[in-house]
Amino acid sequence: MKQSLTLVKVGGKIVEEPESLATLLDGFIKIKGPKMLVHGGGRTATEIAGRLGIETKMAGGRRITDAEMLRVVTMVYGGLVNKNIVSSLSAKGYKALGLTGADMNVIRSHKRPVTSEGIDFGFVGDVDSVDQDAIAMLIEGGVTPVVAPLTLGENGCLLNTNADTVAGETAKAMSRLYDVTLMFCFEKKGVLLDGNDDDSVIPHIDTQLYEQLKAEGIVSGGMLPKLENSFAALRGGVNKVVITRADRLAQGGTVITL
Amino acid sequence: MKQSLTLVKVGGKIVEEPESLATLLDGFIKIKGPKMLVHGGGRTATEIAGRLGIETKMAGGRRITDAEMLRVVTMVYGGLVNKNIVSSLSAKGYKALGLTGADMNVIRSHKRPVTSEGIDFGFVGDVDSVDQDAIAMLIEGGVTPVVAPLTLGENGCLLNTNADTVAGETAKAMSRLYDVTLMFCFEKKGVLLDGNDDDSVIPHIDTQLYEQLKAEGIVSGGMLPKLENSFAALRGGVNKVVITRADRLAQGGTVITL
Repeated sequence: MKQSLTLVKVGGKIVEEPESLATLLDGFIKIKGPKMLVHGGGRTATEIAGRLGIETKMAGGRRITDAEMLRVVTMVYGGLVNKNIVSSLSAKGYKALGLTGADMNVIRSHKRPVTSEGIDFGFVGDVDSVDQDAIAMLIEGGVTPVVAPLTLGENGCLLNTNADTVAGETAKAMSRLYDVTLMFCFEKKGVLLDGNDDDSVIPHIDTQLYEQLKAEGIVSGGMLPKLENSFAALRGGVNKVVITRADRLAQGGTVITL
Repeated sequence: MKQSLTLVKVGGKIVEEPESLATLLDGFIKIKGPKMLVHGGGRTATEIAGRLGIETKMAGGRRITDAEMLRVVTMVYGGLVNKNIVSSLSAKGYKALGLTGADMNVIRSHKRPVTSEGIDFGFVGDVDSVDQDAIAMLIEGGVTPVVAPLTLGENGCLLNTNADTVAGETAKAMSRLYDVTLMFCFEKKGVLLDGNDDDSVIPHIDTQLYEQLKAEGIVSGGMLPKLENSFAALRGGVNKVVITRADRLAQGGTVITL
């Protein structure tokens, strides 16, 4: 039987505020066994870019990353946000280690081609491979990896990469060695049966129930890509996906299985 | 017999320019056996701070680090400069890994007290301990550590720390496990017999010759603290210190022994 590993993905909003970060980490350290974190940091990137006089351009909800913006996200994701999480975990007695995809070449990617609509996202990467052995070496050494959403493109170029994608691809790769639970944090306690009732969390969704919920319109909008992403991770070998709120890591939320 | 380890300390100026960084790394990869790098990054920190409207204050040649400046050095040293070196080494086929002192709690420090002259350096750390085992675990895993000059103070607070000190203390700690050569890069090919003749490199200085050179005024000014620092490292267990120019790592420079 494989050892368990929990990978928590949390958005920038949570890790960028000291109070919500503290709450998140309180729950994170209660998770039993080896664990790792993948984080965002878009708000701070936008703030720092603005103060540096660099305009933030978006297309389809995604940041367009020119050379100047790549410097900003490298500073903010790889430096400020990542090291803030790492040092907060250190204060709690953890041996945390910050990683980008370039560190030990753990996450390799390629530059996203210009879309058929002519959108050039610039220095944005789509993940090609994750080195599960390098990450496992750290975990076996008692280390808690904290991964920033930057990956290693060709010729040693860092590429800005969607943090959900980094989490999903990393979870899939780690599932070759571990029994992986992937936890996605968002603003609700889980997938809700009634969007207006925060306590109507659906405890368990499998492929069959998902099709039913979709047909009935109970899950829709922004929840659809999250669930599609979850099922893709499960089909890629991940054991279990949990969708929950950042302050409820220890309690769990909606469990998703195939 | 212990395995060899070479630790190269290089200032910000070299690693912040793509051309000088490329030359440095060309020499770095020619060094045989396990190696690691400690870098500065002050110029970029000053540049980014300026663009963010944060004033850089110095006292006795050292940066005063208030809360805003700590954010800047965390971004710049831990993110921009560090990841740029890491990804450049990746492009050369190396498994490099960026570290601050907070990563795996490798370098612990305390906040420097207010000086007797009443100077408060702010979030500046003096090194207490370096975890040689954590760094050795990486090296044994085929990793080349790249260390930014940030250390872990109390309560998980990152502290800005002089890169020469980080290099010296890390070299001393690693010498418990390895036969360590510490290389300091500066703007000359080595310690010069004649300051006006760049080719008058003194090949070897030991304690006795150092006292003589000092008495004769041949070494003076900024060279004195560098040599004092080197002898302190040697007394702390480091096998050999080399002072050379960043583009001449493979050729060597002045070798210093006790």
